[in-house]
Amino acid sequence: MSELIIALAQVNTAVGDLEGNARKILEFTERAADARADIVIFPELCLNGYPPEDLLLKTEFVASSTAAACELAKKVGDIIAVVGFVESDYDTFNSAAVMNNGEIRCTYRKTFLPNYGVFDEKRYFGTGSGSVVLDVSGVRVGITICEDIWFAGGPVEEQVAWGGAEILLNLSASPFNRGKYDFRKKLIETRSMDGPVVLAYVNTVGAQDELVFDGGSCVYHPQLGFIAAASRFREEMLLCRVGLGSLKGLRMLEPRFRYSSAKHPQGIDIVRAERPKLNSGGSPDIPTATPPADLEAAEEILEALVMGLKEYVVKNGFEKVVLGLSGGIDSALTAAIAVEALGAQNVVCVFLPSKYTSGESEEAAEGLARNLGVKLLRIPIGEVYTAYREVLSGELGDAEQGETFENIQARIRGNLLMALSNRFGWLVLATGNKSELSMGYCTLYGDMAGGFAVIKDLLKKQVYELAEFLNRRAGAEVISTMIIERPPTAELREGQLDTDNLPPYEELDPVLEAYIEEGLSGEEIISRGFSPELVHSVIRKVDANEYKRRQAPVGVKITPRAFGRDWRMPISTYISRSGKSPTWE
Amino acid sequence: MSELIIALAQVNTAVGDLEGNARKILEFTERAADARADIVIFPELCLNGYPPEDLLLKTEFVASSTAAACELAKKVGDIIAVVGFVESDYDTFNSAAVMNNGEIRCTYRKTFLPNYGVFDEKRYFGTGSGSVVLDVSGVRVGITICEDIWFAGGPVEEQVAWGGAEILLNLSASPFNRGKYDFRKKLIETRSMDGPVVLAYVNTVGAQDELVFDGGSCVYHPQLGFIAAASRFREEMLLCRVGLGSLKGLRMLEPRFRYSSAKHPQGIDIVRAERPKLNSGGSPDIPTATPPADLEAAEEILEALVMGLKEYVVKNGFEKVVLGLSGGIDSALTAAIAVEALGAQNVVCVFLPSKYTSGESEEAAEGLARNLGVKLLRIPIGEVYTAYREVLSGELGDAEQGETFENIQARIRGNLLMALSNRFGWLVLATGNKSELSMGYCTLYGDMAGGFAVIKDLLKKQVYELAEFLNRRAGAEVISTMIIERPPTAELREGQLDTDNLPPYEELDPVLEAYIEEGLSGEEIISRGFSPELVHSVIRKVDANEYKRRQAPVGVKITPRAFGRDWRMPISTYISRSGKSPTWE
Repeated sequence: MSELIIALAQVNTAVGDLEGNARKILEFTERAADARADIVIFPELCLNGYPPEDLLLKTEFVASSTAAACELAKKVGDIIAVVGFVESDYDTFNSAAVMNNGEIRCTYRKTFLPNYGVFDEKRYFGTGSGSVVLDVSGVRVGITICEDIWFAGGPVEEQVAWGGAEILLNLSASPFNRGKYDFRKKLIETRSMDGPVVLAYVNTVGAQDELVFDGGSCVYHPQLGFIAAASRFREEMLLCRVGLGSLKGLRMLEPRFRYSSAKHPQGIDIVRAERPKLNSGGSPDIPTATPPADLEAAEEILEALVMGLKEYVVKNGFEKVVLGLSGGIDSALTAAIAVEALGAQNVVCVFLPSKYTSGESEEAAEGLARNLGVKLLRIPIGEVYTAYREVLSGELGDAEQGETFENIQARIRGNLLMALSNRFGWLVLATGNKSELSMGYCTLYGDMAGGFAVIKDLLKKQVYELAEFLNRRAGAEVISTMIIERPPTAELREGQLDTDNLPPYEELDPVLEAYIEEGLSGEEIISRGFSPELVHSVIRKVDANEYKRRQAPVGVKITPRAFGRDWRMPISTYISRSGKSPTWE
Repeated sequence: MSELIIALAQVNTAVGDLEGNARKILEFTERAADARADIVIFPELCLNGYPPEDLLLKTEFVASSTAAACELAKKVGDIIAVVGFVESDYDTFNSAAVMNNGEIRCTYRKTFLPNYGVFDEKRYFGTGSGSVVLDVSGVRVGITICEDIWFAGGPVEEQVAWGGAEILLNLSASPFNRGKYDFRKKLIETRSMDGPVVLAYVNTVGAQDELVFDGGSCVYHPQLGFIAAASRFREEMLLCRVGLGSLKGLRMLEPRFRYSSAKHPQGIDIVRAERPKLNSGGSPDIPTATPPADLEAAEEILEALVMGLKEYVVKNGFEKVVLGLSGGIDSALTAAIAVEALGAQNVVCVFLPSKYTSGESEEAAEGLARNLGVKLLRIPIGEVYTAYREVLSGELGDAEQGETFENIQARIRGNLLMALSNRFGWLVLATGNKSELSMGYCTLYGDMAGGFAVIKDLLKKQVYELAEFLNRRAGAEVISTMIIERPPTAELREGQLDTDNLPPYEELDPVLEAYIEEGLSGEEIISRGFSPELVHSVIRKVDANEYKRRQAPVGVKITPRAFGRDWRMPISTYISRSGKSPTWE
């Protein structure tokens, strides 16, 4: 009975660090060889880090990537290592190199290039044409990259139906959003059954700017289901013994090419490789296959936020972060996530009271800092505020009411946090949520100030869900009931509540979700039973506040559509000129 | 002798305003009909405004666009109107509708979709297949859209060589950058000679967010050269009588299809239209053909900045702008451009002195305000600064030196300008240049604060060139010699000069230009004779400061590569983590 041992190296590599990434790939290759794997596979573009974005337009980066892959191959022994890298030829390609016995035996070039959502792959890459099938001592192994398996035709069909692949490798860098892991599992299952073919899927792990990669590599067997599944949100080497005997009976159709190896349809390159010393010297240590673990929705999001923040901090050379605690739930959750990501010793909180700050807020902030074990500085903003009022009185008069002075308070707080950042090298965390950012209920250079906005893609309802999950998991009130239950307020004027300016979040959030994440029109949202006034006023606000979002810090994408690379709205539109919605909306 | 009268409607339409744009298109169509034109052509996507960006992902926008085109066609009489619009079918297309006698006779769908630089057209559009050639009472007229004529093959070849087009229309929305107009003229000439075919090129005019469209529509005749040329940087209707008799002798090769109208190669749709009452009732009023006017480099850039700012202000519902005058050249130039764009009555300048501000700076700012005739407010920042120092003394101590307190000064200024903006509804202009922004020599939420950054794509040397051009054109010192000649300083500490932190601009700017705009590697720049230390330290700073640029306001693109949609660099890279350049750079 044919069998292969496949190692899925779910690694976290860094964008642009060719040397460091190559070292890590080699280290995992050696570990796989030690475990007597036949093949070790790495994620998409793992030699370069993903996504390299416009680094791909630099000829020196692309050329060095190809050179680094050649250097790396020299160090690969008789294991077969399949490594994602940027390949330079007559064009630039998103490729997989098959490294074996000191050389690159062949490369496969990604065929389906995503150019939607956060992806710009047609900006950078030429389209691969032609498939590769490895013949590993008689076992046929196909190679695909990420998007290639999102469709039934193309390289999957070529390699399986025509090239006779029994095992299909997929090298991915598939960004996280809520629910995508379950979708991906279904996709892997479907594509495996399409074959039928054993599908070995390796996803990258880690984060880059706004994108989190959640790992979750796995192997699916059309008859046995998931026969191996890696952890999510951490580096891991997954070993899987794949037996193929049972597969043969599953083929519904006469294979079109499989056994007539004398002639290959055009475009399929069959590369023969001798199998390494398979199974010689005792049975390798292979973990029992496990079905993929299910995380509950809040836990999955929390893991993504923790990883996204941690990676941003590390990949930008910071150690500590600083944020303002208001006594409200957004900053409380941000602080709790920061502690989970970086440890309490690396999180500095600052309470920045004004005369509008209630005693309840101070109590809440102090309680939270105690619960989290973080340092809490206290810097009142009153005197700076008075100085602003005085110097502006000539132009603005003495009246204190109105947004102008509310914004000044928020900006003083932003400035004070930035001063601490400048002096001590701490990264400032912005604490705003997606509901606020959608509606423009936030102050540019004020509460929007910071290097990273941890919860910017969380609607307010998700902020509550995560706070409750944290408490439940801890079996204690990390974020106190008082913080969770008090009505949201910016405390920028006497008795202010968020509901003075916004619809209640339980009405607002479903409309935002439908409009931004589902991409529905006003009419479609209204047909779900929301009032036309509510829907139109929300859409108007979202559209009109693009100018603020354009200057917001990056933050972790956790939804299908975040305010980042996958949201490319114009600032100047009919509404920004007239204040009215266009008739088509 | 065959001839047609073609009207090129070089219109300025607004993104998202289908109704307003349709009104303008109809108005220009009626003007063209009154002038007895046979055909009137409009720019690419003029019904939608360009670029609509992610509005194109909204089904209601796309559907309404198609409906609006059908409505518009009902109002078009016997003139042939060729109108760029978003077409909804089994996919979304970037199309040209041929409107005539109350209906859309046919559409042509753009074939070459740019997906580089600022363009994301493969994100939005399906690829057109199949060409259209109009037969206007025996004269064959082909239709192409923008990028379609940037290559010799494809739709140009189909329509001219196979479809027999004698006149080729091109509907464009080609964003301005310095030097592109001259390149475009060469391109038009080349493509016309390729045919040979008369090429009628209509470009949009106006601006949208960071992009300026400079117009410069024209008609090129392969034997006569440019037979008509529109103004740049303003709306215009250009009428041109095209005689075709002389063209026949120019065909070098036997036409492959042209005269065998019985069978058309697949994919070419020949649409017959009866010519309107051509030339009946006397000769129409057609201006004499003029060769395209040449603007000098500084003038071209100035016109682009003026238009870019003016359009941003109007398209976002503002009337007035406010900016800080420091007494330096950047803010002086920004103010002068604002006055040219909006009139002195709509520009408010603010002088914001600290104890480090020299008397010379105050004199310079006052002189400039006088020369420009603008209001100058004076708001000293000393007391607010003192208040910040006091409140921070607990955490930071009393020492005043260092970047922390320099940044606070810049941020106080940003806050004060934002306060005026909040109270009076004035748009804040940021005044930073590209040299500073490249090197991170600017303060987030400080001098970077604002809604629009007019000169963000100008290297310091271009700031000087523009100031000198303004003075030369005015025949007077609008921006005084003192401002031009004093050494650049941020005046954030005693005796500070830009050269304390930056190489002299005359050394810095050529390196920045080579690295950012030409996309050269460090090695390539060094091989031009620059010192390796200079080059590497500049590249390191540019790379490391992406996080600041990501939060910068939009501003006018005037170079081949601006810090905007055409610069998609990662924030987290090897250098942001380690402070060192990667080995490949």
